[in-house]
Amino acid sequence: MEKITVLGAGRVGNAIARDLAERYEVTAVDAHEAPLNRLRSSMAVRQADLSDARALRAVVEGADLVIGALPGFMGFEVLKTLLEAGKQVVDISFFPEDPLRLDELAKCRDCTAVVDCGVAPGMDNLILGHHHRSMKVERFRCLVGGLPRVREWPWEYRAVFSPIDVIEEYVRPARYREGGRLVTREALSDPELMDFPGLGTLEAFNTDGLRTLLHTMPDVPDMIEKTLRYPGCIEYLRVLRAGGFFSYEEIEVDGKRVRPIDVTAKLLFPKWQLRPGESDFTIMRVIVEGRENSRPVRYTYDLLDEYDPETDTLSMARTTGYTCTAVAELVLSGAFQRPGVCPPEFVGEAGLLDKVLGYLRERGVEYRVQREEVSSRQ
Amino acid sequence: MEKITVLGAGRVGNAIARDLAERYEVTAVDAHEAPLNRLRSSMAVRQADLSDARALRAVVEGADLVIGALPGFMGFEVLKTLLEAGKQVVDISFFPEDPLRLDELAKCRDCTAVVDCGVAPGMDNLILGHHHRSMKVERFRCLVGGLPRVREWPWEYRAVFSPIDVIEEYVRPARYREGGRLVTREALSDPELMDFPGLGTLEAFNTDGLRTLLHTMPDVPDMIEKTLRYPGCIEYLRVLRAGGFFSYEEIEVDGKRVRPIDVTAKLLFPKWQLRPGESDFTIMRVIVEGRENSRPVRYTYDLLDEYDPETDTLSMARTTGYTCTAVAELVLSGAFQRPGVCPPEFVGEAGLLDKVLGYLRERGVEYRVQREEVSSRQ
Repeated sequence: MEKITVLGAGRVGNAIARDLAERYEVTAVDAHEAPLNRLRSSMAVRQADLSDARALRAVVEGADLVIGALPGFMGFEVLKTLLEAGKQVVDISFFPEDPLRLDELAKCRDCTAVVDCGVAPGMDNLILGHHHRSMKVERFRCLVGGLPRVREWPWEYRAVFSPIDVIEEYVRPARYREGGRLVTREALSDPELMDFPGLGTLEAFNTDGLRTLLHTMPDVPDMIEKTLRYPGCIEYLRVLRAGGFFSYEEIEVDGKRVRPIDVTAKLLFPKWQLRPGESDFTIMRVIVEGRENSRPVRYTYDLLDEYDPETDTLSMARTTGYTCTAVAELVLSGAFQRPGVCPPEFVGEAGLLDKVLGYLRERGVEYRVQREEVSSRQ
Repeated sequence: MEKITVLGAGRVGNAIARDLAERYEVTAVDAHEAPLNRLRSSMAVRQADLSDARALRAVVEGADLVIGALPGFMGFEVLKTLLEAGKQVVDISFFPEDPLRLDELAKCRDCTAVVDCGVAPGMDNLILGHHHRSMKVERFRCLVGGLPRVREWPWEYRAVFSPIDVIEEYVRPARYREGGRLVTREALSDPELMDFPGLGTLEAFNTDGLRTLLHTMPDVPDMIEKTLRYPGCIEYLRVLRAGGFFSYEEIEVDGKRVRPIDVTAKLLFPKWQLRPGESDFTIMRVIVEGRENSRPVRYTYDLLDEYDPETDTLSMARTTGYTCTAVAELVLSGAFQRPGVCPPEFVGEAGLLDKVLGYLRERGVEYRVQREEVSSRQ
């Protein structure tokens, strides 16, 4: 039986470890004891400080594959250490550094490291990669959101991931490609209302989510990614930003120097925390347009996934985590064995999208796929 | 020629001092030199720390009347010192303490001290006092706002007075009388859109502005005061409050203890500052309903006043300051000579509203008055 080490046992790491433990010998590792206690009955667990490279090397020794499910700020260094140790890796830490900086290292050790392997980034990359090999893609559009079922004014939001990464989304300019040119838009810009069947109206806004696609898909002239929220909240976040509450520049208050962003984080993070038993959902729409056998076509992928009350698994953990475990299985089985740092579009380009969709479907994560022939005028 | 000392030479104090200097021997006093330099050519000026009672007594020596135009937090102590020194006073500092606590002191020194003598509080009290002596008032309603002509998202507001007093308005519960009973509503509550001819739509919200009227008008069963802003801003302020940004409770940020309200003040006050040459307007509507000679009547007073570019005088300084100078003239001439601490409703009850309206009209501050007989069903 093959051995997998899962680094990080948060909401998503937990779902990953439990899914894999049914078929592999899994060890879950976390810096804290509480999340490990929830896994102890079904697999080996180890408490370790993974920012310490030596401790990290010790816990992954003997593993055939390692899953990285750590906070973004740790991700890059951890991946580097894992590749130096010659490990196969599937990572969902979404670290801010460019993962391709580790490509040569991975190739030199003959390792495969699939990065950004969640729902978005993740599945949208896989979908684009899949169509990119069989058609001339002219336009790519991804809309995605993970939201609580119960809306509480004013934020109507819960942070399933690290909340400081959420505020980053509201500050960092969003990079897109339009007419073949890189364009940059202000974060929280271009809000637009959109209707989703069975769900209602949400609001999409610009976020910097294309990441590797801006490098790996130079021939796709139009690419955009937007995040979805309940309508109205975007404006409140814009007000906070306009008021200076997201600023990283120190101000002097009552003789003390503080950064407004830290004050805001302290005030809002407790309010953004998911309460026990609270349910969430994931909504995603990916549209790929272009020419297939010289005919203009449009593919639309729609996902609406819900919290699973039976296993108390958040939808965001399901949609992110099971994409990661699907690809882990492809790497371990040898179905995907491209050496180097591989964003998920490479997995799609390798013809493995249907396998991943099938794997997700078995776990109730269902993408509805629609193919239309469109007039070239549209 | 009678002597008047004007304490405070800010935006409003400046307008007061210049108006009075045309007819009286005026001395303007301020803690800072810059505001005094703008008055130096037309009157005597003195720089003094007015929180020092001895300095205060020195600058008012020989004055026949003193005007208090200082920030609210200083107002009460200054008035007390002035009354102890036996001075006649007209005050617009709108201090938070109950002014009637100084009533016995004023009576004992045979002084008249008119407090809260601006536009609102001020003119609305005068209007209610006027009608209160000649009719059975059943309902009093005051809507008032001072706003910049140019709207800048998101606050669309400039603080002409002390900005910390403005935030107080967004936090302190608003007290009203309804059906003869005192009721308390959350600040920023009950927003309602209202149209004003020649101006457009504004939004009214609950603020704690009735002050002395809650004590001096026990027989008026319905009394309400609301503040006006451009539509939309109220919600942003509610979001800030819901986010904890108006909280006075210390939080720990990066090892330092700060109050969120202080951080918010530091961030927003520079944005709320009126820029040089920026123009403002004052909008006020006062409605007094009841029975006059057994007939149901409604009086409506409408004010829409503008910045005066010729003398660079803000509308808020005009409407507030000239009410103050009108009453100062009534006190000095002996037309109003009731000993004690007198809120402006006493000036109205003394039959002096028309004199004040005439004084304001001469300065271009025009109240349009409408009297309607209404069906008792309305």
